[in-house]
Amino acid sequence: MAGRDDGNSAYGHKAFKRSRSHFADRITADGRDGRPVEDGRYRLIVSRACPWASRAVISRRLLGLEDALSMGIADPIQDDRSWRFTLDPDGRDPVLGIRFLAEAYDRREKDHPGGVSVPAIVDVTDGELVTNDYQRITLDLAAEWSALHRDGAPDLYPEPLRGEIDAIMAEVYEDVNNGVYRAGFANGQAEYEEACAAVFRRLELLASRLAWRRYLVGDTITEADIRLFTTLVRFDAVYHGHFKCNRWKLTENDVLWAYARDLFQTPGFGDTVDFDHIKRHYYQVHTGINPTRIVPLGPDLSGWLSPHHRERLGGRPFGDGTPPGPVRPGEEVPPRGRP
Amino acid sequence: MAGRDDGNSAYGHKAFKRSRSHFADRITADGRDGRPVEDGRYRLIVSRACPWASRAVISRRLLGLEDALSMGIADPIQDDRSWRFTLDPDGRDPVLGIRFLAEAYDRREKDHPGGVSVPAIVDVTDGELVTNDYQRITLDLAAEWSALHRDGAPDLYPEPLRGEIDAIMAEVYEDVNNGVYRAGFANGQAEYEEACAAVFRRLELLASRLAWRRYLVGDTITEADIRLFTTLVRFDAVYHGHFKCNRWKLTENDVLWAYARDLFQTPGFGDTVDFDHIKRHYYQVHTGINPTRIVPLGPDLSGWLSPHHRERLGGRPFGDGTPPGPVRPGEEVPPRGRP
Repeated sequence: MAGRDDGNSAYGHKAFKRSRSHFADRITADGRDGRPVEDGRYRLIVSRACPWASRAVISRRLLGLEDALSMGIADPIQDDRSWRFTLDPDGRDPVLGIRFLAEAYDRREKDHPGGVSVPAIVDVTDGELVTNDYQRITLDLAAEWSALHRDGAPDLYPEPLRGEIDAIMAEVYEDVNNGVYRAGFANGQAEYEEACAAVFRRLELLASRLAWRRYLVGDTITEADIRLFTTLVRFDAVYHGHFKCNRWKLTENDVLWAYARDLFQTPGFGDTVDFDHIKRHYYQVHTGINPTRIVPLGPDLSGWLSPHHRERLGGRPFGDGTPPGPVRPGEEVPPRGRP
Repeated sequence: MAGRDDGNSAYGHKAFKRSRSHFADRITADGRDGRPVEDGRYRLIVSRACPWASRAVISRRLLGLEDALSMGIADPIQDDRSWRFTLDPDGRDPVLGIRFLAEAYDRREKDHPGGVSVPAIVDVTDGELVTNDYQRITLDLAAEWSALHRDGAPDLYPEPLRGEIDAIMAEVYEDVNNGVYRAGFANGQAEYEEACAAVFRRLELLASRLAWRRYLVGDTITEADIRLFTTLVRFDAVYHGHFKCNRWKLTENDVLWAYARDLFQTPGFGDTVDFDHIKRHYYQVHTGINPTRIVPLGPDLSGWLSPHHRERLGGRPFGDGTPPGPVRPGEEVPPRGRP
């Protein structure tokens, strides 16, 4: 999620456009971009508010990469220097020693164009940003980091299904993941209406698909489910009101609401979600659409823990693998962020 | 609903305060304030967007006062001169001949303090505003205008029940009718939270009351139901998102949603409601809380016409009277404003 320019850039004369990631080096098993996968060498910087970063938070949990790839959590409220480590003692990331994520960006490239965004992976050995390529990071965690996966880690991006996974992720990105932003940051009525209609058209197609199958592709959890989940879990809390995607609430669509609850209650999903960070970030940072910065009391979140009955559809959540263990101490979501 | 200062005054340093009506002359059977009830002498000016004015629109229908008291409908979008007759040919009210409601206010008192609000009753004989006392107008339509009521008109403010009706209307006013405004125009987080919590606390109490009785007081429709209805019918369309009263949608509360649908489907209620006027007014006029002026596509309104099953609770909607006839030609809500 863009930092410095998110929200501001949305109010230019053109339609909302999400900027491409400027730093797209890959961390690979063979190290062909100069940064090989290595136990303990990198640090993942995220905001729990951000749907793009939350993909990586979930993947890291499901794959059991917590020891191999440490994680820093930025304050959900950015200032004009973007993402800050104000939640940490002395306001510094305890591993990188920096106060602003921008410092790692600057170390990599002085006066780089574009904003400071999460997810970001920083090389701990030199403090340089390696990648902020949110579309690629989780695919590489699944496919390139396999030597460091936990025993029983699921295959989130199985080779034989990649064509189908990529196709559905492209539609979900365009109409849903980024569609809610195009609606929320629209510069005019027509632009908003086009985006909002596409959000609900696509959600209805997805609901048909999910009515009789537990997961989007195959019979196990894949990257496609992670990417749909990170938008659905934010839907009623922020996209419905703040971004005006209000044809219906997620809780009013029986299929998608049960699908989202099923994932939420699966270890590695709901235990990464901080509704407090989500709500404060969206409502307090986007002053262009919420000038009062007031954060709503609703919605009632208690339903997230109610039975979903999706196990009746079969499916093997982790395939031949197993669920992840408990959340790493120190990485638990505080009570105020939970349903 | 205040015109010139609504929204603006809400952003001062103090908590949102609804101004008292400045013109509180009463039109009575005995004419003690100098303006007696008289067939055809007065004109009711409303906005279909405004909950306070909509009380009078409903009462006039239920009581069959359409011939005796004509009605002018203002454009839902005010400009800096407040309510305008831009929906009428040549932008002038066809009976009063004025372009702005403010002209009737000025004719009554030059440079009067306070804003221009609806509902307003204007004396057609001299073009002067008589009253904008939204708390009193409907009570007088029910009690003072009885000589001009249609055959079969209900008693909306029955003498023996006035104590109970007044008590419940006072609570509904404080926490619900005006509570949603205090939430939506709050100047800070604490003020918003107090107001929003009170809205839902009161709605939950009302839901308990209405679980086993069809109407709020007695077993017939009274003024108390009209006043609760005008807020409930706007709840999901504007108060939920725009005013951040989003703990739950009306459609998520089984009792209140059925109660509101029952009234909506009763002649004289739903046939006065223009969701297009409601949504455009709130989202386009209050630029302090919606600077983009974008009007959401949602919510889905089709549920308003679904069966409510409240007749099982008994009750006699019109008591010993009868429902009103069809809407007067020329006063129908256009299709785009209906569910």
